[in-house]
Amino acid sequence: MSALLPSRRELDFQLFEVLDAGALAGAPRFADHDRATFDGVLDGAWRLAVERFAPHAALADVEEPQLRGHEVWLPAPTRDALRAAADAGYFAAPFDASLGGLQLPWSVAQAANAVFAAANVGFYGYALLTVGAANLLAAHGSPAQVERYVRPMVAGRWFGTMCLSEPQAGSSLADVRTAAVRAPDGTWRVTGSKMWISGGEHELADNIVHLVLARVSGGPPGVKGLSLFVVPKFRLRDDGTPDPQARNGVRCIGLNHKMGWRGTVNTVLAFGDQGDCVGELVGEEHAGLRIMFHMMNEARIGVGLCATALGCAGYVAALDYARHRPQGRPLGERDPASAPVPILRHADVRRMLLAQKAWVEGALSLVLYCARLVDERRIALDAGDAAAAREHEGLLELLTPVAKSWPSEYCLEANKLAIQVHGGYGYTRDYPVERLYRDNRLNAIHEGTLGIHGLDVLGRKVRQDGGAAFAALGRRIASTVQAAAAEPELAPLARQLGGTFDRLAATTRRLVAAVRDVGPERALANATPYLDALGQVVVAWRWLEQARVALAARPATPGEAAFHAGKRAAARYFFRYELPRVGPTLELLDSLDDTALAMPDDGW
Amino acid sequence: MSALLPSRRELDFQLFEVLDAGALAGAPRFADHDRATFDGVLDGAWRLAVERFAPHAALADVEEPQLRGHEVWLPAPTRDALRAAADAGYFAAPFDASLGGLQLPWSVAQAANAVFAAANVGFYGYALLTVGAANLLAAHGSPAQVERYVRPMVAGRWFGTMCLSEPQAGSSLADVRTAAVRAPDGTWRVTGSKMWISGGEHELADNIVHLVLARVSGGPPGVKGLSLFVVPKFRLRDDGTPDPQARNGVRCIGLNHKMGWRGTVNTVLAFGDQGDCVGELVGEEHAGLRIMFHMMNEARIGVGLCATALGCAGYVAALDYARHRPQGRPLGERDPASAPVPILRHADVRRMLLAQKAWVEGALSLVLYCARLVDERRIALDAGDAAAAREHEGLLELLTPVAKSWPSEYCLEANKLAIQVHGGYGYTRDYPVERLYRDNRLNAIHEGTLGIHGLDVLGRKVRQDGGAAFAALGRRIASTVQAAAAEPELAPLARQLGGTFDRLAATTRRLVAAVRDVGPERALANATPYLDALGQVVVAWRWLEQARVALAARPATPGEAAFHAGKRAAARYFFRYELPRVGPTLELLDSLDDTALAMPDDGW
Repeated sequence: MSALLPSRRELDFQLFEVLDAGALAGAPRFADHDRATFDGVLDGAWRLAVERFAPHAALADVEEPQLRGHEVWLPAPTRDALRAAADAGYFAAPFDASLGGLQLPWSVAQAANAVFAAANVGFYGYALLTVGAANLLAAHGSPAQVERYVRPMVAGRWFGTMCLSEPQAGSSLADVRTAAVRAPDGTWRVTGSKMWISGGEHELADNIVHLVLARVSGGPPGVKGLSLFVVPKFRLRDDGTPDPQARNGVRCIGLNHKMGWRGTVNTVLAFGDQGDCVGELVGEEHAGLRIMFHMMNEARIGVGLCATALGCAGYVAALDYARHRPQGRPLGERDPASAPVPILRHADVRRMLLAQKAWVEGALSLVLYCARLVDERRIALDAGDAAAAREHEGLLELLTPVAKSWPSEYCLEANKLAIQVHGGYGYTRDYPVERLYRDNRLNAIHEGTLGIHGLDVLGRKVRQDGGAAFAALGRRIASTVQAAAAEPELAPLARQLGGTFDRLAATTRRLVAAVRDVGPERALANATPYLDALGQVVVAWRWLEQARVALAARPATPGEAAFHAGKRAAARYFFRYELPRVGPTLELLDSLDDTALAMPDDGW
Repeated sequence: MSALLPSRRELDFQLFEVLDAGALAGAPRFADHDRATFDGVLDGAWRLAVERFAPHAALADVEEPQLRGHEVWLPAPTRDALRAAADAGYFAAPFDASLGGLQLPWSVAQAANAVFAAANVGFYGYALLTVGAANLLAAHGSPAQVERYVRPMVAGRWFGTMCLSEPQAGSSLADVRTAAVRAPDGTWRVTGSKMWISGGEHELADNIVHLVLARVSGGPPGVKGLSLFVVPKFRLRDDGTPDPQARNGVRCIGLNHKMGWRGTVNTVLAFGDQGDCVGELVGEEHAGLRIMFHMMNEARIGVGLCATALGCAGYVAALDYARHRPQGRPLGERDPASAPVPILRHADVRRMLLAQKAWVEGALSLVLYCARLVDERRIALDAGDAAAAREHEGLLELLTPVAKSWPSEYCLEANKLAIQVHGGYGYTRDYPVERLYRDNRLNAIHEGTLGIHGLDVLGRKVRQDGGAAFAALGRRIASTVQAAAAEPELAPLARQLGGTFDRLAATTRRLVAAVRDVGPERALANATPYLDALGQVVVAWRWLEQARVALAARPATPGEAAFHAGKRAAARYFFRYELPRVGPTLELLDSLDDTALAMPDDGW
């Protein structure tokens, strides 16, 4: 079995045919690049993924991180792979050249990240966190903080973490207790414990930069009283280098033993329980959560990307297995002495593969679209076009819970079917699909559970700025619908999407009004099904866009023609098997059903 | 955390209130029993499950079976627990008194089995197989075989297996290659290898009775040329006792390392590769598959029962966690200094718990209904009522793929939500829900994959005997609908179910006609979604029946009233959140969609 990566053809289609990423090189920010650079980024990611990441994915699952004293042991290939990725510029990819970055489009960097995550999500986790932490500090740190912390993270020499949750405060950040007190020298002393901290301790990097939410005295209770601190594992010398003798007062006091995604160590950290834990304030006091959202939003789409990548890997594995496993005969073949056929010939196997394709490539289209919005926002800001930047920002905020959640649900389902295609073999550890399924189960939990994102999208995002982002989404969907309606093959799909979006919009208005009329508890009781329905509509839109591009393509070879025909078939599948399921969900939402709320206490 | 068992109140409701199992004591076969005996069976199962099964479920997951030479090492509590269950009569429960059995109703025995499976599915697996193998031999073995093999299995001293699959023949039994040749003494010599054999080697019992499908010379190719053999691990002395020195020529040559359900060892067996493997023919030559179906059908419902039990265990764990984990505040509570509430207060957690309740208790109702059909068939046969027996038999055949598959899908989904309710904790091995989820993933694969059952139900079961079984199902559903329609609370549900069944029946007729008109490949291309729709309708019926019984109950205490109110709420949930999803599926089926079939070869 070769490395389980999304096909290069697929990424090229998404990036360059659907999203026209090649055109980004025309923007001043990306002027040093062209299509050849972008291709080189992807080529290099493939090479590293095949050589350094994929070969150790099973190992990272079996050889779990171990806590030895307060140090964490990890399998040696972890460091090697990340070192190679950093040296090749994959941490630096999206950052400003002035910080040592390559100033590549976010969409191109994310496509490369999808390759790493598909190859070995456990290894990739460290890069995801480091780039996110560096991006936050680049945006919100003081010039001195940027200089000291961001540069080595961009170079991949230091890694980053995000320290939000505590044992008693997972989804509820209002209950964070970690405290920070200002010292005479202007630095802070941090005390408390943090839970679920990925990459919280290891020896993969020269330093670890923890971003820590904590309370300072005088702040309001709840999330509005949180401030953000940067806490290095090793304190810095005056020249900015970490001092291995000056261990800061942050210790790993436990590991979480996870069902999957084991390559990324998950830690319990104690701050300041034995010796001073010195931190620096990032931004203003009490503005911590707002600043942290910079990293959280990026990480949320990163989670969607990882879910997608795991789904892609499973699809590739299942397709390969189905092509090569002989078993059974076509229905209607009466001669039991005839040769067995590859199971790819069986209708139900084809249905399961097409479902996987529709889910994982739909998810990929969604997360890369979000990455493209990041690029568009940046270009608009650079051009001084505040209105356009605001629209991109709003859309991104609306789509973030969708891009986090929809892939987490449906690409897990894809991994489930990847096992099913393998039959009993898929349930054994001799094949990779059970591992992918275990890895992927995390994605509906971390960076905000599915339920939290349902409340976020329905309780906040569809309403904010008077519903501006939802309206902008509607305009973009309408634009695709209009273009597709002109093609006879796509006109029925266009009508279906247009009609479904109109129903979704009506339900959205009804629910927004209900928050006011019957209160948030009942109006938002089915926010998670709402998020699902919104996701189905958004992904249907991404599929119609893919089908439109595929239909317009002028393929030069039979292989190209088949690729585009496959895209159109997967779009059809999505519209026939998936999108109609939104109907009953919208009816349910319209009814403001309160069965679960009304359940009697002793009725369970 | 106490043992994760379905509540006793729940089993009493299903068995005695819904299925009126108490009335079975009126049948001659069960005349030695009464409600007190049945209660004693359940009480004893609870005690054993709590003391002997549940405490070792996590151990059985971590301490996987090991192959040492050709012997299998298992954790010591495995043998202790099964020994205790056998000594208490839980293997003997359903068998004739003349064979040393307790002659209990199958439905009561299955309720007890649900308790064992919830407590520790890995341990229970051996009992499931042994009872199934003994039942087959009791029905199809010669008197001498019954005497020699069945009695020690009924006593739980010997265990059983079913040996169908081979490395090249999983779903496709037509390709079985294992061969048997008659020896001069009338016994047979079996050669070949078998794959995926649960309980294929261990030292838990004094002997292992393998039931082996193999080919004899002169038979037709395909499944019609299979014969069934009984192959003991140790050959028998003249007095019928196993001779530990006379090891038969069947060796364990490998173990499958599974994602879950690890307590039941899964083996690769070689027959006759080193030394003679002596077997006895069961029944006629070339009748092997038909006979094996006796055990397969029982095992299939057994798989549904295990899936259900795992779902129940997860629900119990999630409910317990939700009651005791404080986190967050009600929506609309503005004071962040107010005390956190148990997460059971949050609407989305309640929705996830109610979904689990609706799925697992719906599944339990279905599998116990099937067990009740086994009892009814037996009673009809004893009474000489061939027509009634035939109706029960037909219904059972129609419902077997549903009872196997629906719980395997939806109780896995329940386990997924049980993890979700636990948040990050649920993803760790410190809590049992991730294990339950891994265990349950097997159930859609073994004893016929989901796809195989789709083909079975749509390609065969709904059509056989001119659709008699489907018509009988329709009559029973109509009867519940009619009774429920008289209750104002249930009338809307009754109308909904009646209408949905009518649509399902129309789709069924259309698809049956399509097999003739457009051929089986296209007509059956969506057999798996058909199976799902049928399952949703059948489980909705079981919920309407539960709601009807709950509404009619005259509760003596507030706790009783709340229990019955909870049942009605869960029924409402099923009809509002689940049953409507059948609509789009039936539309899809009516369209004879062939998107997956038409996918171009290079389009993936």
